[in-house]
Amino acid sequence: MPVAWQQLYADRTERMRASDIREILKVTAQPDIISLAGGLPAPELFPVDEYRRAFEWLLETDGPAALQYGPSEGYGPLREFVAERMTRFKMPCSADDVLITNGSQQALDLLGKVFLDPGDAVLVEKPTYLGALQAFNQYQPTFVAVPMDDDGMQVDLVERALSRNGGGRGQHRIKFIYALPNFQNPTGRSMSLERRQRLVELASQHGIPIVEDDPYGELRYEGKHLPTLKSLDRDGTVIYLGTFSKILAPGLRLGWVVGGPEAVEALLHGKQPSDLHTGMAQQMATYLVAKDGFVDRHVEKVKDFYRERRDVMLQAIEEHFPSDAHHTRPAGGLFVWAELPPHIDTRELLLEAIKDKVAFVPGQGFHSDHSGTNTMRLNFSNVPPDLVREGIRRLGSAIHRRLSEKQRTQPRVAI
Amino acid sequence: MPVAWQQLYADRTERMRASDIREILKVTAQPDIISLAGGLPAPELFPVDEYRRAFEWLLETDGPAALQYGPSEGYGPLREFVAERMTRFKMPCSADDVLITNGSQQALDLLGKVFLDPGDAVLVEKPTYLGALQAFNQYQPTFVAVPMDDDGMQVDLVERALSRNGGGRGQHRIKFIYALPNFQNPTGRSMSLERRQRLVELASQHGIPIVEDDPYGELRYEGKHLPTLKSLDRDGTVIYLGTFSKILAPGLRLGWVVGGPEAVEALLHGKQPSDLHTGMAQQMATYLVAKDGFVDRHVEKVKDFYRERRDVMLQAIEEHFPSDAHHTRPAGGLFVWAELPPHIDTRELLLEAIKDKVAFVPGQGFHSDHSGTNTMRLNFSNVPPDLVREGIRRLGSAIHRRLSEKQRTQPRVAI
Repeated sequence: MPVAWQQLYADRTERMRASDIREILKVTAQPDIISLAGGLPAPELFPVDEYRRAFEWLLETDGPAALQYGPSEGYGPLREFVAERMTRFKMPCSADDVLITNGSQQALDLLGKVFLDPGDAVLVEKPTYLGALQAFNQYQPTFVAVPMDDDGMQVDLVERALSRNGGGRGQHRIKFIYALPNFQNPTGRSMSLERRQRLVELASQHGIPIVEDDPYGELRYEGKHLPTLKSLDRDGTVIYLGTFSKILAPGLRLGWVVGGPEAVEALLHGKQPSDLHTGMAQQMATYLVAKDGFVDRHVEKVKDFYRERRDVMLQAIEEHFPSDAHHTRPAGGLFVWAELPPHIDTRELLLEAIKDKVAFVPGQGFHSDHSGTNTMRLNFSNVPPDLVREGIRRLGSAIHRRLSEKQRTQPRVAI
Repeated sequence: MPVAWQQLYADRTERMRASDIREILKVTAQPDIISLAGGLPAPELFPVDEYRRAFEWLLETDGPAALQYGPSEGYGPLREFVAERMTRFKMPCSADDVLITNGSQQALDLLGKVFLDPGDAVLVEKPTYLGALQAFNQYQPTFVAVPMDDDGMQVDLVERALSRNGGGRGQHRIKFIYALPNFQNPTGRSMSLERRQRLVELASQHGIPIVEDDPYGELRYEGKHLPTLKSLDRDGTVIYLGTFSKILAPGLRLGWVVGGPEAVEALLHGKQPSDLHTGMAQQMATYLVAKDGFVDRHVEKVKDFYRERRDVMLQAIEEHFPSDAHHTRPAGGLFVWAELPPHIDTRELLLEAIKDKVAFVPGQGFHSDHSGTNTMRLNFSNVPPDLVREGIRRLGSAIHRRLSEKQRTQPRVAI
């Protein structure tokens, strides 16, 4: 009897389908497409020589340790390095408060695993990071989606949601708040200082943890650094997620969580049965690359590089997009977000854009309620400036075509 | 209001406590203890120079790709390498059938995630790999534990369990069979050919997948290679788990799954939200080390090395353990299993052994029903022969002390 696979899968798999991100990574692999889709860093920035020297030194001096099993918490010196850096950024902590993960994505999975029973709720921004929705979806939660404006998540609506919050396990009780306050993925928006303060206050008041996902915080191209939620946290309410993906390179899969002892211990108990530990060689090499101030110097270079690409993208959008399209003007990060007239479905637009050899991410996937059908995410980090310009030009022309088609096919109410 | 963490955790965390494996890894870190506890390979065997050269070449010739995001399925050439090797070992498959994971441990987590609703059952050997019980426990299953004898899992009892199997989701329905047919962790036992054939037949007959975990299959020190369950599989019932941990090195965390398209796709949909993908640099370097026959040559060296340590351990056990202790005589792998008189609790014995500076793993954790309190797992791969001998001598003396104490304190029924 052949196995009836579909009948054996767990209920949670209904929400674990093939994802946009994966398909995007495939589209970007075609060399003749200008991809504004993925969230990939610019490979020309990767510290390749530094990693080559680090692996060489590591395997000459400490080879057996680099290739042996290691602790589930992560490589000690790397945890210390992270703790010192976090402390310098006004988030005082020690190595014991740091858990090393396989990129921030694993941290999101572990958070879902540790906190979410089916039917529990997560309060998220609308829109929010697609990969976080996917990670949490594995644990069958509901979402309380709080709309954003140019100052980020509308925190007065968070207040309302938290006051109504109650119920037992699985009864839509909010287990944590998930926020990306800096140059958010997908919108590029940042939360205002006032809202940051208010959000941390509210979370503390209601005893609800905040998960602060901060992959882009160091990549600010203009304006003044705003304090992270974690740096405003007085009683251990905030669990902070950081990553080396955007400040060094994503290909080794290294991120970290900083939290209080309860949260870190719970996540560690989720990490251990998931993969025993994060690989040692990659942690040790990354420590060698990152230490002695290299990351700080490198980040300056990355910022200059991405600032130019952002400027080119914003200029091209203003030139080529229709005037009734709105877009964000991010002060950092990797993404611009655009909102087209409501009758344009960006999934349909993508099919057309790909014919013109340009790709982006339709915005619907970033909405936990499947709204946002007229929105799109545009990445500027992974494409050289002239191609950013050309990509936006092509995209603008596809949007204009689409708009005029829609006008032609629109039913005329009065003749 | 401080966060009441305990009240926020998901139900599944009740079964995700601090684990023996983690505590063991800590004990083994103390340099003055002879640890027969962990399942660590011998670091003096690691191909350190080969990895040094591989990372150097890789970062000289293909650096940006090594440090960039990659596909969730794994690095193409590594998947092809695995498929060719599996095919050579009479498990014909193509790269499309291979999913790269962060060690086999991640595969176990993904299997739990994809197949197990709370209350579903997994059929396991008794005893079985502790890390598998921990991985599955995250998804709140029940276990049907089938006892072993010297020929491995008692397959006639599997037949009985499968015939009784029924019910809907969450009603103790067996979702898959988990088996380690070669030099099993913890017992070192192997399943006889006849039982292998019968098990595959039964699984196919009932349409129940088998998960074959085979980390040690290539490490046979004597006797004839037995076909894997996967090589006996005619209709895609068997999902095979392999790993580079024991044939190259565990520190980079690289394993693989081979299965039919349905199973591999479902596991991929579990992998992607868990960590996007396994790190590229470590996959690419491992491919460079492994290819062109290196693994095959290296495995021969590993076998000679471990065979000696096994022989020393078996000889020392016969010399120093009491005559009423039973132990296995594994033909491969990393472990010997011992069963002491029923009134000896090996958890208590461990506390005493540690005073004598020797460690092992008490066997209870390997039993899904928490039996096996008089059993122990002894590792011979990670300790030089003279220390294996000395460790067993100390352990034998601790057991003898324990036995005589028990005799003294035994209540006398007739005076």
